[in-house]
Amino acid sequence: MSDYYAVGKSVSRVDATAKVTGEAVYTADVMLPGMLYGMAKRSPYAHARIVRIDSRKAEALPGVRAVITAENVPGVLLGLKLQDVPILARNEARFAGEKVAAVAAVDEETAREAINLIEVEYEELPAITDVEEAMKDGAPLVHDNLHTYAGLPAPVKHTNIFFHETFSKGDTAQGFAQADLVFEQTFTTPIVHQGYMEPHAALVDIAPDGGVTVWSSVKVPFRVRAIMAEIIGLPITRVRVIPGFVGGDFGGKGMVLDEPLCYYLARKSGRPVKMVMSRQEEFLAASPRHASIIRLKAGVSKSAELVAWEANAVFDSGAYAGYKPGVGLGGTKKLAGAYRVPHVRIDGYYVYTHTVPCGHCRAPGDPQASFAVESFIDMIASRLKLDPFCFRWLNALEEGDLSPTGEPWKAINLKETMTAAVNASGWGKPKPRKHYGIGIACAERPTGTGESSAVVIVSGDGSVNLITGSSDPGTGSRTILCQIVAEALKVPMDRITINLVDTDSAPYDQGAGGGRTTFVAGLSAYRAALEVRKQLVASAAKLLKCPQEQAQDLIEARDGFLFVKSDPNKKISYSQAVRAAGKSQLIGEETFSCKEMDDTCFATHIAEVQVDAERGVVEVLRITAAHDIGFAINPAAAEGQIEGGIVQGVGFALLEEMQRAEGKVANPTLTDYKLCTSLDAPEIVTLLVEGAPGAGPFHAKAIGEIPTCPIAPAVANAIFDAVGVRITELPITGEKIVKALKESGASRPVPVAVGKER
Amino acid sequence: MSDYYAVGKSVSRVDATAKVTGEAVYTADVMLPGMLYGMAKRSPYAHARIVRIDSRKAEALPGVRAVITAENVPGVLLGLKLQDVPILARNEARFAGEKVAAVAAVDEETAREAINLIEVEYEELPAITDVEEAMKDGAPLVHDNLHTYAGLPAPVKHTNIFFHETFSKGDTAQGFAQADLVFEQTFTTPIVHQGYMEPHAALVDIAPDGGVTVWSSVKVPFRVRAIMAEIIGLPITRVRVIPGFVGGDFGGKGMVLDEPLCYYLARKSGRPVKMVMSRQEEFLAASPRHASIIRLKAGVSKSAELVAWEANAVFDSGAYAGYKPGVGLGGTKKLAGAYRVPHVRIDGYYVYTHTVPCGHCRAPGDPQASFAVESFIDMIASRLKLDPFCFRWLNALEEGDLSPTGEPWKAINLKETMTAAVNASGWGKPKPRKHYGIGIACAERPTGTGESSAVVIVSGDGSVNLITGSSDPGTGSRTILCQIVAEALKVPMDRITINLVDTDSAPYDQGAGGGRTTFVAGLSAYRAALEVRKQLVASAAKLLKCPQEQAQDLIEARDGFLFVKSDPNKKISYSQAVRAAGKSQLIGEETFSCKEMDDTCFATHIAEVQVDAERGVVEVLRITAAHDIGFAINPAAAEGQIEGGIVQGVGFALLEEMQRAEGKVANPTLTDYKLCTSLDAPEIVTLLVEGAPGAGPFHAKAIGEIPTCPIAPAVANAIFDAVGVRITELPITGEKIVKALKESGASRPVPVAVGKER
Repeated sequence: MSDYYAVGKSVSRVDATAKVTGEAVYTADVMLPGMLYGMAKRSPYAHARIVRIDSRKAEALPGVRAVITAENVPGVLLGLKLQDVPILARNEARFAGEKVAAVAAVDEETAREAINLIEVEYEELPAITDVEEAMKDGAPLVHDNLHTYAGLPAPVKHTNIFFHETFSKGDTAQGFAQADLVFEQTFTTPIVHQGYMEPHAALVDIAPDGGVTVWSSVKVPFRVRAIMAEIIGLPITRVRVIPGFVGGDFGGKGMVLDEPLCYYLARKSGRPVKMVMSRQEEFLAASPRHASIIRLKAGVSKSAELVAWEANAVFDSGAYAGYKPGVGLGGTKKLAGAYRVPHVRIDGYYVYTHTVPCGHCRAPGDPQASFAVESFIDMIASRLKLDPFCFRWLNALEEGDLSPTGEPWKAINLKETMTAAVNASGWGKPKPRKHYGIGIACAERPTGTGESSAVVIVSGDGSVNLITGSSDPGTGSRTILCQIVAEALKVPMDRITINLVDTDSAPYDQGAGGGRTTFVAGLSAYRAALEVRKQLVASAAKLLKCPQEQAQDLIEARDGFLFVKSDPNKKISYSQAVRAAGKSQLIGEETFSCKEMDDTCFATHIAEVQVDAERGVVEVLRITAAHDIGFAINPAAAEGQIEGGIVQGVGFALLEEMQRAEGKVANPTLTDYKLCTSLDAPEIVTLLVEGAPGAGPFHAKAIGEIPTCPIAPAVANAIFDAVGVRITELPITGEKIVKALKESGASRPVPVAVGKER
Repeated sequence: MSDYYAVGKSVSRVDATAKVTGEAVYTADVMLPGMLYGMAKRSPYAHARIVRIDSRKAEALPGVRAVITAENVPGVLLGLKLQDVPILARNEARFAGEKVAAVAAVDEETAREAINLIEVEYEELPAITDVEEAMKDGAPLVHDNLHTYAGLPAPVKHTNIFFHETFSKGDTAQGFAQADLVFEQTFTTPIVHQGYMEPHAALVDIAPDGGVTVWSSVKVPFRVRAIMAEIIGLPITRVRVIPGFVGGDFGGKGMVLDEPLCYYLARKSGRPVKMVMSRQEEFLAASPRHASIIRLKAGVSKSAELVAWEANAVFDSGAYAGYKPGVGLGGTKKLAGAYRVPHVRIDGYYVYTHTVPCGHCRAPGDPQASFAVESFIDMIASRLKLDPFCFRWLNALEEGDLSPTGEPWKAINLKETMTAAVNASGWGKPKPRKHYGIGIACAERPTGTGESSAVVIVSGDGSVNLITGSSDPGTGSRTILCQIVAEALKVPMDRITINLVDTDSAPYDQGAGGGRTTFVAGLSAYRAALEVRKQLVASAAKLLKCPQEQAQDLIEARDGFLFVKSDPNKKISYSQAVRAAGKSQLIGEETFSCKEMDDTCFATHIAEVQVDAERGVVEVLRITAAHDIGFAINPAAAEGQIEGGIVQGVGFALLEEMQRAEGKVANPTLTDYKLCTSLDAPEIVTLLVEGAPGAGPFHAKAIGEIPTCPIAPAVANAIFDAVGVRITELPITGEKIVKALKESGASRPVPVAVGKER
């Protein structure tokens, strides 16, 4: 039983009422007087030369206030790291859905009509839509001037492979020479959309003095500020970004999309301009998860120890690479799993094609890597006739091990999650019925870093304000931060108000992403609160006649009061302490910046499925998810993150795929693109494995990203366990299962040989 | 020639463009979805019992969403100090214009119609509208339960005199015994309105979770927050007050008016409710300047030295006293001027009557006191056949003197302003024509105190954000605060953005008032900026290889760069320094609280007038205004304050009067209530007398209030000089001059005896 005051408890979300009543204001809800509605004209071709744009008819349409093309916007290229995205396509469209022009009109209907009236003459060009074709020497280039782009890690020319990264440890040649068995397998994953409920929305208002106000659904307001200020050429403090509530992110809300267009439409029309992407536009032209082709090769000793490991991953970036904070994806580094391997080499290739540009999606690159690695591990175990749990256990990292790529990880808690998951699931028990299967998969994920700030104010009546520029894209971080401050100050939650304020009013915060909020924003809020507590205690010490130099030890806080520990009847309220300090409030401020961290969290998922072997239909019965969380500040919120990740992972495993036809997304609607619904969702058993000290406040570890990683391979492994076929291409559709069962010549479980003996 | 970087310069106002283009958002401009329009039903009687209110017809009117009476609001009494104002009149209306009910409807017309449909049955009661009648024993009482009111300085019962304050020094009986000549005179001033352009406006929105957002034209958002939270019973952090631009204040925007009504209408209707007072309502029921009756008595030696002084002031508070931060008015303490007098006694009486409740108006009580004292001083000089300048010079306070009420004032700079004004005006020169007159008057005024906070952020590109909860009611304080920060950090003004943010986003600030902003908010901004500069220098020292312990001395800041003083080629930008600190920004925060201050500023005004002795028309030709300002951070802004104060003072002297008939304001329109327009305004010569060290940043003194104090007596003295009649009752209308000239038997200058010889 913890003696915590406000953390470790599943308190309700502080924004619950605002959300369920519809009071919460999302960017699309914001209305300004005289506001216009913007819309983009998009290329229908995956690759085309823009010969001519005639916007005269659109301009003549009553109610149209501005039409812009590449001529009306600066030629800058945008990108979080690699800068390659034009504001509007100039001369050339590189994917079907790319913006070639935009309009602003008095209402959405007029805008839509105007879009249709814009005449664009294209010269269709050959499109490279297959990533392996794109990698070949002499393939037509998606970007001719790649070598001139800012943010490129190494200068490359005349290639679609804009980045090749490697990670290695030991000597794989030597490793494979030592191995008794060598296995190889290729896995593929498709493009999938983040599936957030709220589409991208932006609204820009230009003040007469040139100051710019941006409302944006993006989860990183300070990043939007910096990008917009740079495009426009203003000091960043002249751009104010007002974040709305964010209706889901999962990595997709990390980069400006229509914000610059809104600005140039507003500048041309002299009116505020709002753009809200339709669901179709979201599918055609947002920044979904990269498709991947992953080749793995493993060398294993007779005693079932991994001795060598090679991974080769190709990520199809689509037409642009600017939508992610790194040029590569973190998942590449995870392509050897969380296992003890002395000799490792990983190669990651990032390749342009004429398809929708990809970005970040919840644990960037990791679900792809996890699917490949954890499927492969199971295949090896099967080949070795070992229980998949035992084979993992034998090779799983333990405290003191280096990671597969050589990092010294801290608080390695993998086996604890394995034990917890196995104990709580049907693992090792007799199968209840035919075509039931059980699968296991493990994952690890680091905690995000960066910079956050917080201001904590204790007011004259003892109530508390937390001011922060951090973002809550729906994860519950508002609530978590309030709990952290409530704990530090020992005041009830209902006395704390959190203000996620705009970039003018808040100190800098890097924004949500990479599972960093609880750790970085949380620590800054915690330290700011402790700073105020120190001031409260110092002020109380005067009233309580307690020597100042010992006050911090002798005085205790609780329920908005300060007590002398040795004599709890001697107490004063926070309100009195503030007044005794001669002020109307006491303020603590903290900026916490963390560049690198070795804090890693671990998870094990066990999937139980029932397969209809005739039709190939998979019912995921239950997921048992054990997560190394360090300490759960809000157990219900952590469970929510895990449950959401699992549902998303089931979709990735079985349902989701942005289908492409001639480079264009062929199923850009929620009717044709299948998300995992409540009807598809399994029973979920979440196990919060506490105890391993994380870097966050109260030893919390990150929980935002990892839940979505091990789920697809756990399901794939369970399907294999159920019907004996191994599907290596996501999603695992019924057709693929039926086809594989036919090819394997039977609909009964048969171990499929996947290794090749040396 | 100063070597200041950004202060001491008449830079343009930072909000100039927003204001002249109409972009600036005032509270009345704010529109919310579903918003209703509130309106108040007001008593037509100065005193009446409310027998019955029937709102059924109003409630039945389509479009009406809520009608409330005293039954629907809590019985709390509001007040800044003395708490005596009900939210709606309960049982009894105490002045004509008092709110007895309120409605909220879908538009203003419907609201107005609904107001007319509310039937109120009154029983008219005898009204006490004469303050001297109200003071008599046995007079009917405006408040029966006065003794139960919170905030009363001393318990009083069964009286309309709710407060009697005294100030004294020495022994006036002894003083008058020593005096060779004793003079007595009574002066009166009327109720005048502050005359701000923007009427009071309020808008309240209640979130589903009970959190309250208030938009208010009040200049003290944190005060509004505290009052609203107390009425509603919420922690103050659950109430968010969003200040709009404020279109003039002059003391009139210091207290909630319709904010609580908006809240209860919003609660009843479930919709946000806005109320904007009409100009007529402003005259009937805002909080104008108190009328006064001031009796002065002075004892003078043969050598023209003031030896004894008695003052007795009666301020007519109207029906309520809750509209001012003190129970009394600061002006009472000024009733002996800025002269050396050994024996002083001042009595101030504050009295209820059944008239419009009075509040604060630019230098509360001071223009009344100044008019009396400085007219009286001139009358004594005339009687003594002394030049009014010489008589003042002889008795004027000098450095080291105690104030008339015994305070040790600092930096007494009165004579410097006298000399400056006399030298720059027509004083002592031959009169250019008949009925031309010249008059002089002096004044002093302390600098306001209290608590302010500021957060200064230097961003990654070297641009600067100043976050403050202080208010700019049109005085230019936004600009002044930016100049102070620009000076402290040595960055150009266009790199600084000021954010006057709402109460959720800013640390506490007491708000504008009493000439405190430059001093208190200014010092907090200055110190916060110096704190950041210290961090910048420390970070620069690392890059410039300068020893940390000497860095603050060896490194200099200029134009956004940090130099090694001894080798200016060694420099780095602020942007580099921020990055070198390993952060995205550097932050300084300062809360500055000052309870009491002896910082006093002085002024001398000289008025030159031309009187049309037949019709009594006074043309104010020129005002020469010399002001002890310590240091003018923005000379144009200081001159603007002085010019505005003079124009307001000319109105007080000659034009303005809220006329009363049966207790009700009889001229509640700008047609009938005469303000000083540009056609009436004189030529103004402003003289900024720098040098005496004020308490503010760069030794600035306050300039907001004092300019309006000496102007009425200077004009009265000039009229006396022109035509020889002494008007002791403001305003000095043509009728009064003509009547006085007739009574004095001549239209030529004749000294009028006012003293009485002992």
